[in-house]
Amino acid sequence: MIKLYKFDFSIEMERGVDIKDITGMVAKAITKANVKDGVVHITSIGSTGSVTTIEYESGVIEDLKRIINELAPPDRYYEHERAWHDGNGHSHVQSALLGPSVSISIRSGKLELGTWQQIVLINHDIHPRLRKVSLTIIGTDEG
Amino acid sequence: MIKLYKFDFSIEMERGVDIKDITGMVAKAITKANVKDGVVHITSIGSTGSVTTIEYESGVIEDLKRIINELAPPDRYYEHERAWHDGNGHSHVQSALLGPSVSISIRSGKLELGTWQQIVLINHDIHPRLRKVSLTIIGTDEG
Amino acid sequence: MIKLYKFDFSIEMERGVDIKDITGMVAKAITKANVKDGVVHITSIGSTGSVTTIEYESGVIEDLKRIINELAPPDRYYEHERAWHDGNGHSHVQSALLGPSVSISIRSGKLELGTWQQIVLINHDIHPRLRKVSLTIIGTDEG
Repeated sequence: MIKLYKFDFSIEMERGVDIKDITGMVAKAITKANVKDGVVHITSIGSTGSVTTIEYESGVIEDLKRIINELAPPDRYYEHERAWHDGNGHSHVQSALLGPSVSISIRSGKLELGTWQQIVLINHDIHPRLRKVSLTIIGTDEG
Repeated sequence: MIKLYKFDFSIEMERGVDIKDITGMVAKAITKANVKDGVVHITSIGSTGSVTTIEYESGVIEDLKRIINELAPPDRYYEHERAWHDGNGHSHVQSALLGPSVSISIRSGKLELGTWQQIVLINHDIHPRLRKVSLTIIGTDEG
Repeated sequence: MIKLYKFDFSIEMERGVDIKDITGMVAKAITKANVKDGVVHITSIGSTGSVTTIEYESGVIEDLKRIINELAPPDRYYEHERAWHDGNGHSHVQSALLGPSVSISIRSGKLELGTWQQIVLINHDIHPRLRKVSLTIIGTDEG
Protein backbone atom coordinates (compact mmCIF):
# COMPACT_ATOMS: atom_id res chain seq x y z
CA MET A 1 0.00 0.00 0.00
CA ILE A 2 1.40 3.39 -1.04
CA LYS A 3 1.09 6.24 1.44
CA LEU A 4 1.77 9.96 1.13
CA TYR A 5 2.80 12.14 4.07
CA LYS A 6 3.50 15.86 4.21
CA PHE A 7 5.69 17.69 6.68
CA ASP A 8 6.41 21.39 6.58
CA PHE A 9 8.78 23.29 8.82
CA SER A 10 10.59 26.61 9.11
CA ILE A 11 14.16 27.31 10.04
CA GLU A 12 15.89 30.52 11.12
CA MET A 13 18.69 31.40 8.70
CA GLU A 14 21.43 34.03 8.84
CA ARG A 15 21.93 36.46 5.97
CA GLY A 16 23.22 34.74 2.80
CA VAL A 17 25.05 32.80 1.90
CA ASP A 18 23.99 30.73 4.91
CA ILE A 19 23.95 26.93 4.74
CA LYS A 20 22.21 24.75 7.32
CA ASP A 21 22.11 20.98 7.78
CA ILE A 22 18.45 19.82 7.74
CA THR A 23 19.15 16.07 7.55
CA GLY A 24 17.99 15.48 11.13
CA MET A 25 14.63 17.15 10.51
CA VAL A 26 14.06 15.16 7.32
CA ALA A 27 15.05 11.90 9.06
CA LYS A 28 12.63 12.63 11.91
CA ALA A 29 9.78 13.18 9.45
CA ILE A 30 10.52 9.83 7.80
CA THR A 31 10.46 8.10 11.19
CA LYS A 32 7.07 9.71 11.97
CA ALA A 33 5.74 8.73 8.53
CA ASN A 34 6.79 5.15 9.24
CA VAL A 35 7.45 4.26 5.61
CA LYS A 36 9.75 1.41 4.62
CA ASP A 37 10.76 2.16 1.03
CA GLY A 38 10.09 5.23 -1.04
CA VAL A 39 11.26 8.76 -1.64
CA VAL A 40 11.25 12.14 0.11
CA HIS A 41 10.95 15.33 -1.94
CA ILE A 42 12.48 18.35 -0.20
CA THR A 43 11.51 21.76 -1.55
CA SER A 44 12.67 25.20 -0.44
CA ILE A 45 9.84 27.73 -0.59
CA GLY A 46 10.75 31.23 -1.77
CA SER A 47 12.83 32.74 -4.55
CA THR A 48 16.03 33.32 -2.55
CA GLY A 49 16.51 29.84 -1.09
CA SER A 50 17.75 26.52 -2.44
CA VAL A 51 18.42 22.96 -1.36
CA THR A 52 21.16 20.46 -2.23
CA THR A 53 23.40 17.84 -0.56
CA ILE A 54 27.02 18.17 0.59
CA GLU A 55 29.34 16.92 3.34
CA TYR A 56 28.43 19.23 6.23
CA GLU A 57 31.98 20.05 7.29
CA SER A 58 32.88 23.66 8.16
CA GLY A 59 35.73 23.93 5.65
CA VAL A 60 33.83 22.73 2.59
CA ILE A 61 30.78 24.77 3.63
CA GLU A 62 32.99 27.89 3.45
CA ASP A 63 34.26 26.71 0.05
CA LEU A 64 30.72 26.30 -1.26
CA LYS A 65 29.70 29.76 0.03
CA ARG A 66 32.70 31.37 -1.70
CA ILE A 67 32.04 29.67 -5.02
CA ILE A 68 28.30 30.44 -4.95
CA ASN A 69 29.31 34.10 -4.47
CA GLU A 70 31.64 33.82 -7.47
CA LEU A 71 28.87 32.45 -9.72
CA ALA A 72 26.66 35.47 -8.99
CA PRO A 73 28.74 38.00 -7.02
CA PRO A 74 26.92 40.28 -4.54
CA ASP A 75 29.00 43.32 -5.56
CA ARG A 76 28.06 43.43 -9.27
CA TYR A 77 25.31 45.43 -10.91
CA TYR A 78 22.02 43.60 -11.38
CA GLU A 79 19.11 44.70 -13.55
CA HIS A 80 16.87 43.56 -10.70
CA GLU A 81 17.92 46.75 -8.89
CA ARG A 82 16.23 48.99 -11.47
CA ALA A 83 12.82 47.88 -10.29
CA TRP A 84 13.39 46.91 -6.69
CA HIS A 85 16.50 48.59 -5.24
CA ASP A 86 16.62 45.87 -2.60
CA GLY A 87 20.17 44.74 -3.27
CA ASN A 88 19.40 41.04 -3.66
CA GLY A 89 19.62 40.50 -7.44
CA HIS A 90 22.49 38.07 -6.90
CA SER A 91 20.39 36.15 -4.33
CA HIS A 92 17.69 35.40 -6.90
CA VAL A 93 20.22 34.31 -9.54
CA GLN A 94 22.13 32.08 -7.10
CA SER A 95 18.89 30.46 -5.96
CA ALA A 96 17.77 29.73 -9.55
CA LEU A 97 21.15 28.17 -10.40
CA LEU A 98 21.17 25.87 -7.35
CA GLY A 99 17.51 24.91 -7.69
CA PRO A 100 14.63 24.56 -5.21
CA SER A 101 14.35 20.79 -4.73
CA VAL A 102 16.03 17.42 -4.33
CA SER A 103 14.63 13.89 -4.08
CA ILE A 104 16.29 11.37 -1.75
CA SER A 105 15.48 7.66 -1.54
CA ILE A 106 14.15 5.96 1.58
CA ARG A 107 15.31 2.36 2.13
CA SER A 108 14.44 0.16 5.12
CA GLY A 109 12.90 3.17 6.87
CA LYS A 110 16.00 5.37 6.50
CA LEU A 111 17.31 8.17 4.30
CA GLU A 112 19.56 6.61 1.65
CA LEU A 113 22.51 9.01 1.84
CA GLY A 114 26.25 8.51 1.67
CA THR A 115 28.21 8.40 4.94
CA TRP A 116 29.40 11.98 4.48
CA GLN A 117 26.35 13.31 2.65
CA GLN A 118 23.92 15.72 4.33
CA ILE A 119 20.86 17.60 3.07
CA VAL A 120 21.34 21.37 3.30
CA LEU A 121 19.08 24.38 3.04
CA ILE A 122 20.67 27.56 1.66
CA ASN A 123 19.60 31.14 2.30
CA HIS A 124 20.89 33.43 -0.47
CA ASP A 125 19.01 36.53 0.66
CA ILE A 126 20.81 39.55 2.13
CA HIS A 127 18.67 39.48 5.26
CA PRO A 128 18.15 36.81 7.92
CA ARG A 129 15.11 34.78 6.95
CA LEU A 130 12.71 32.31 8.49
CA ARG A 131 12.91 29.92 5.52
CA LYS A 132 10.13 27.41 4.86
CA VAL A 133 10.82 23.84 3.75
CA SER A 134 8.19 21.47 2.44
CA LEU A 135 8.60 17.67 2.55
CA THR A 136 6.48 15.18 0.66
CA ILE A 137 7.16 11.54 1.53
CA ILE A 138 5.79 8.80 -0.70
CA GLY A 139 6.43 5.19 0.23
CA THR A 140 5.26 1.76 1.26
CA ASP A 141 4.03 0.92 4.75
CA GLU A 142 6.53 -0.32 7.25
CA GLY A 143 6.24 -4.07 8.03
CA MET B 1 -6.21 7.28 -1.62
CA ILE B 2 -3.16 8.23 -3.70
CA LYS B 3 -3.71 9.27 -7.30
CA LEU B 4 -1.31 9.92 -10.16
CA TYR B 5 -2.06 12.32 -12.98
CA LYS B 6 0.01 13.20 -16.04
CA PHE B 7 -0.12 16.39 -18.06
CA ASP B 8 2.13 17.19 -21.00
CA PHE B 9 2.28 20.44 -22.91
CA SER B 10 4.45 22.33 -25.37
CA ILE B 11 5.47 25.96 -25.37
CA GLU B 12 6.96 28.17 -28.09
CA MET B 13 10.32 29.53 -27.02
CA GLU B 14 12.62 32.14 -28.55
CA ARG B 15 16.27 31.37 -29.25
CA GLY B 16 18.30 30.92 -26.05
CA VAL B 17 18.69 31.98 -23.46
CA ASP B 18 14.91 32.37 -23.30
CA ILE B 19 13.07 32.07 -19.99
CA LYS B 20 9.31 31.64 -19.73
CA ASP B 21 6.98 31.56 -16.74
CA ILE B 22 5.02 28.27 -16.77
CA THR B 23 3.50 28.57 -13.27
CA GLY B 24 0.01 29.22 -14.65
CA MET B 25 0.07 26.05 -16.75
CA VAL B 26 1.27 23.95 -13.82
CA ALA B 27 -1.35 25.47 -11.52
CA LYS B 28 -4.09 24.73 -14.05
CA ALA B 29 -3.01 21.07 -14.26
CA ILE B 30 -3.19 20.78 -10.47
CA THR B 31 -6.69 22.23 -10.48
CA LYS B 32 -7.74 19.69 -13.13
CA ALA B 33 -6.14 16.85 -11.20
CA ASN B 34 -8.11 17.92 -8.14
CA VAL B 35 -5.53 16.75 -5.61
CA LYS B 36 -5.36 18.15 -2.09
CA ASP B 37 -1.83 17.40 -0.90
CA GLY B 38 1.08 15.98 -2.82
CA VAL B 39 3.80 16.93 -5.26
CA VAL B 40 4.20 17.91 -8.91
CA HIS B 41 7.29 16.87 -10.83
CA ILE B 42 8.08 19.18 -13.74
CA THR B 43 10.51 17.87 -16.37
CA SER B 44 11.86 19.61 -19.45
CA ILE B 45 12.21 17.17 -22.35
CA GLY B 46 15.24 17.59 -24.59
CA SER B 47 18.95 18.19 -24.07
CA THR B 48 18.94 21.98 -24.54
CA GLY B 49 16.21 22.92 -22.07
CA SER B 50 16.00 23.20 -18.30
CA VAL B 51 13.61 24.10 -15.52
CA THR B 52 14.03 25.99 -12.23
CA THR B 53 12.27 28.60 -10.07
CA ILE B 54 12.91 32.34 -9.83
CA GLU B 55 11.06 35.62 -9.30
CA TYR B 56 9.68 36.31 -12.77
CA GLU B 57 10.63 39.98 -12.93
CA SER B 58 12.16 41.36 -16.15
CA GLY B 59 15.33 42.70 -14.49
CA VAL B 60 16.34 39.54 -12.67
CA ILE B 61 15.42 37.44 -15.72
CA GLU B 62 18.01 39.46 -17.69
CA ASP B 63 20.50 38.92 -14.86
CA LEU B 64 19.95 35.16 -14.94
CA LYS B 65 20.35 35.05 -18.75
CA ARG B 66 23.64 36.97 -18.52
CA ILE B 67 25.07 34.73 -15.83
CA ILE B 68 23.98 31.50 -17.59
CA ASN B 69 25.88 32.82 -20.63
CA GLU B 70 28.91 33.44 -18.44
CA LEU B 71 28.90 29.88 -17.07
CA ALA B 72 29.06 28.43 -20.59
CA PRO B 73 29.63 31.31 -23.03
CA PRO B 74 28.19 31.00 -26.57
CA ASP B 75 31.33 32.51 -28.15
CA ARG B 76 33.86 29.96 -26.90
CA TYR B 77 35.12 26.85 -28.69
CA TYR B 78 33.28 23.62 -27.82
CA GLU B 79 34.42 20.09 -28.65
CA HIS B 80 30.80 19.41 -29.53
CA GLU B 81 31.43 21.36 -32.76
CA ARG B 82 33.93 18.78 -34.05
CA ALA B 83 31.16 16.26 -34.56
CA TRP B 84 28.10 18.41 -35.13
CA HIS B 85 29.03 21.91 -36.34
CA ASP B 86 25.67 23.13 -35.10
CA GLY B 87 26.93 25.88 -32.83
CA ASN B 88 25.05 24.83 -29.72
CA GLY B 89 27.75 23.20 -27.58
CA HIS B 90 27.18 25.85 -24.92
CA SER B 91 23.42 25.12 -24.96
CA HIS B 92 24.00 21.49 -23.97
CA VAL B 93 26.41 22.42 -21.17
CA GLN B 94 24.11 25.15 -19.78
CA SER B 95 21.17 22.74 -19.80
CA ALA B 96 23.13 20.03 -17.94
CA LEU B 97 24.26 22.53 -15.28
CA LEU B 98 20.74 23.86 -14.64
CA GLY B 99 19.12 20.42 -14.71
CA PRO B 100 15.94 19.04 -16.28
CA SER B 101 13.54 18.82 -13.34
CA VAL B 102 12.14 20.31 -10.15
CA SER B 103 9.60 19.01 -7.64
CA ILE B 104 7.15 21.43 -6.02
CA SER B 105 4.77 20.61 -3.17
CA ILE B 106 0.98 20.84 -3.42
CA ARG B 107 -0.84 21.92 -0.27
CA SER B 108 -4.60 22.46 0.07
CA GLY B 109 -4.99 22.08 -3.69
CA LYS B 110 -2.40 24.76 -4.55
CA LEU B 111 1.23 25.01 -5.61
CA GLU B 112 3.33 25.68 -2.50
CA LEU B 113 5.54 28.49 -3.82
CA GLY B 114 6.83 31.68 -2.27
CA THR B 115 5.02 34.93 -3.02
CA TRP B 116 7.67 35.95 -5.55
CA GLN B 117 8.60 32.47 -6.76
CA GLN B 118 7.63 31.26 -10.22
CA ILE B 119 8.39 28.06 -12.15
CA VAL B 120 10.33 28.79 -15.34
CA LEU B 121 11.21 26.83 -18.46
CA ILE B 122 14.51 27.76 -20.12
CA ASN B 123 15.48 27.29 -23.76
CA HIS B 124 19.26 27.24 -24.15
CA ASP B 125 19.25 26.29 -27.85
CA ILE B 126 20.38 28.71 -30.55
CA HIS B 127 17.11 28.31 -32.47
CA PRO B 128 13.52 28.97 -31.46
CA ARG B 129 12.05 25.73 -30.16
CA LEU B 130 8.68 24.22 -29.38
CA ARG B 131 9.81 22.86 -26.00
CA LYS B 132 7.96 19.99 -24.35
CA VAL B 133 7.24 19.87 -20.63
CA SER B 134 6.04 16.81 -18.76
CA LEU B 135 4.15 17.02 -15.45
CA THR B 136 3.51 14.13 -13.11
CA ILE B 137 1.24 14.95 -10.17
CA ILE B 138 1.03 12.55 -7.22
CA GLY B 139 -1.32 13.34 -4.38
CA THR B 140 -4.31 12.63 -2.21
CA ASP B 141 -7.87 13.13 -3.37
CA GLU B 142 -9.53 16.45 -2.66
CA GLY B 143 -12.14 16.34 0.07
CA MET C 1 -3.62 1.44 -8.94
CA ILE C 2 -0.38 3.21 -7.99
CA LYS C 3 2.71 1.09 -7.47
CA LEU C 4 6.17 1.89 -6.12
CA TYR C 5 9.29 0.02 -7.14
CA LYS C 6 12.87 0.47 -6.01
CA PHE C 7 16.01 -0.45 -7.89
CA ASP C 8 19.52 0.20 -6.68
CA PHE C 9 22.72 -0.41 -8.59
CA SER C 10 26.42 0.45 -8.54
CA ILE C 11 28.67 1.55 -11.36
CA GLU C 12 32.45 1.67 -11.63
CA MET C 13 33.62 5.23 -12.32
CA GLU C 14 37.01 6.64 -13.24
CA ARG C 15 38.54 9.50 -11.23
CA GLY C 16 36.62 12.77 -11.68
CA VAL C 17 35.34 14.39 -13.59
CA ASP C 18 33.98 11.15 -15.07
CA ILE C 19 30.57 11.11 -16.74
CA LYS C 20 28.71 7.88 -17.56
CA ASP C 21 25.48 7.23 -19.45
CA ILE C 22 23.07 5.32 -17.17
CA THR C 23 19.96 5.65 -19.38
CA GLY C 24 20.02 1.96 -20.31
CA MET C 25 20.03 0.85 -16.69
CA VAL C 26 17.16 3.19 -15.80
CA ALA C 27 15.17 2.04 -18.85
CA LYS C 28 15.69 -1.62 -17.90
CA ALA C 29 14.40 -0.94 -14.37
CA ILE C 30 11.26 0.67 -15.80
CA THR C 31 10.67 -2.35 -18.04
CA LYS C 32 11.01 -4.67 -15.01
CA ALA C 33 8.69 -2.48 -12.95
CA ASN C 34 6.12 -2.73 -15.75
CA VAL C 35 4.57 0.67 -15.12
CA LYS C 36 2.66 2.56 -17.79
CA ASP C 37 2.69 6.20 -16.68
CA GLY C 38 4.56 7.78 -13.81
CA VAL C 39 7.94 9.07 -12.80
CA VAL C 40 11.39 7.76 -11.95
CA HIS C 41 13.52 9.52 -9.34
CA ILE C 42 17.24 8.97 -9.84
CA THR C 43 19.50 9.80 -6.90
CA SER C 44 23.29 9.63 -6.66
CA ILE C 45 24.38 8.44 -3.22
CA GLY C 46 27.48 10.09 -1.75
CA SER C 47 28.81 13.62 -1.43
CA THR C 48 31.11 13.58 -4.48
CA GLY C 49 28.65 12.40 -7.14
CA SER C 50 25.83 14.03 -9.07
CA VAL C 51 23.23 13.26 -11.72
CA THR C 52 21.84 15.29 -14.64
CA THR C 53 20.86 14.87 -18.31
CA ILE C 54 22.85 15.75 -21.44
CA GLU C 55 23.42 14.54 -24.98
CA TYR C 56 25.90 11.73 -24.46
CA GLU C 57 28.29 12.70 -27.27
CA SER C 58 32.04 12.58 -26.62
CA GLY C 59 32.67 16.22 -27.61
CA VAL C 60 30.03 17.80 -25.40
CA ILE C 61 30.95 15.45 -22.53
CA GLU C 62 34.48 16.91 -22.67
CA ASP C 63 32.97 20.40 -22.74
CA LEU C 64 30.89 19.68 -19.63
CA LYS C 65 33.92 18.24 -17.79
CA ARG C 66 35.98 21.33 -18.59
CA ILE C 67 33.30 23.75 -17.45
CA ILE C 68 32.58 21.81 -14.23
CA ASN C 69 36.32 22.11 -13.49
CA GLU C 70 36.11 25.85 -14.12
CA LEU C 71 33.21 26.29 -11.66
CA ALA C 72 35.25 24.70 -8.86
CA PRO C 73 38.82 24.20 -10.12
CA PRO C 74 40.84 21.25 -8.73
CA ASP C 75 44.02 23.35 -8.44
CA ARG C 76 42.71 26.04 -6.09
CA TYR C 77 42.95 26.16 -2.30
CA TYR C 78 39.94 24.77 -0.43
CA GLU C 79 39.19 25.18 3.27
CA HIS C 80 38.15 21.53 3.22
CA GLU C 81 41.87 20.68 3.13
CA ARG C 82 42.49 22.13 6.60
CA ALA C 83 40.51 19.33 8.18
CA TRP C 84 40.90 16.48 5.73
CA HIS C 85 43.98 16.91 3.52
CA ASP C 86 42.36 14.59 1.01
CA GLY C 87 42.53 16.91 -1.98
CA ASN C 88 38.88 16.68 -2.95
CA GLY C 89 37.41 19.98 -1.75
CA HIS C 90 36.53 20.87 -5.34
CA SER C 91 34.75 17.51 -5.73
CA HIS C 92 32.34 18.28 -2.90
CA VAL C 93 31.60 21.77 -4.22
CA GLN C 94 31.05 20.55 -7.80
CA SER C 95 28.71 17.84 -6.56
CA ALA C 96 26.63 20.28 -4.50
CA LEU C 97 26.29 22.68 -7.45
CA LEU C 98 25.14 19.96 -9.88
CA GLY C 99 22.82 18.31 -7.35
CA PRO C 100 22.12 14.68 -6.39
CA SER C 101 18.82 13.95 -8.16
CA VAL C 102 16.61 14.29 -11.22
CA SER C 103 13.04 13.17 -11.90
CA ILE C 104 12.12 11.90 -15.37
CA SER C 105 8.60 11.11 -16.58
CA ILE C 106 7.48 7.66 -17.72
CA ARG C 107 4.92 7.60 -20.53
CA SER C 108 3.48 4.48 -22.22
CA GLY C 109 6.04 2.34 -20.38
CA LYS C 110 9.05 4.36 -21.55
CA LEU C 111 11.39 7.08 -20.28
CA GLU C 112 10.14 10.42 -21.60
CA LEU C 113 13.43 11.90 -22.82
CA GLY C 114 14.36 13.94 -25.87
CA THR C 115 15.94 12.15 -28.84
CA TRP C 116 19.41 13.35 -27.85
CA GLN C 117 18.90 13.42 -24.10
CA GLN C 118 20.56 10.87 -21.82
CA ILE C 119 20.70 10.46 -18.03
CA VAL C 120 24.26 10.71 -16.73
CA LEU C 121 25.98 9.91 -13.47
CA ILE C 122 28.99 12.08 -12.60
CA ASN C 123 31.93 11.17 -10.34
CA HIS C 124 33.63 14.32 -9.08
CA ASP C 125 35.98 12.53 -6.66
CA ILE C 126 39.74 12.37 -7.25
CA HIS C 127 39.75 8.57 -7.00
CA PRO C 128 37.96 5.91 -9.01
CA ARG C 129 34.72 5.06 -7.22
CA LEU C 130 32.07 2.37 -7.21
CA ARG C 131 29.21 4.89 -7.21
CA LYS C 132 25.75 3.90 -5.97
CA VAL C 133 22.57 5.02 -7.67
CA SER C 134 19.11 4.68 -6.20
CA LEU C 135 15.96 4.59 -8.35
CA THR C 136 12.41 4.98 -7.08
CA ILE C 137 9.72 4.41 -9.70
CA ILE C 138 6.14 5.47 -8.97
CA GLY C 139 3.47 4.79 -11.56
CA THR C 140 0.29 3.13 -12.74
CA ASP C 141 0.07 -0.53 -13.66
CA GLU C 142 0.62 -1.45 -17.28
CA GLY C 143 -2.57 -2.50 -19.11
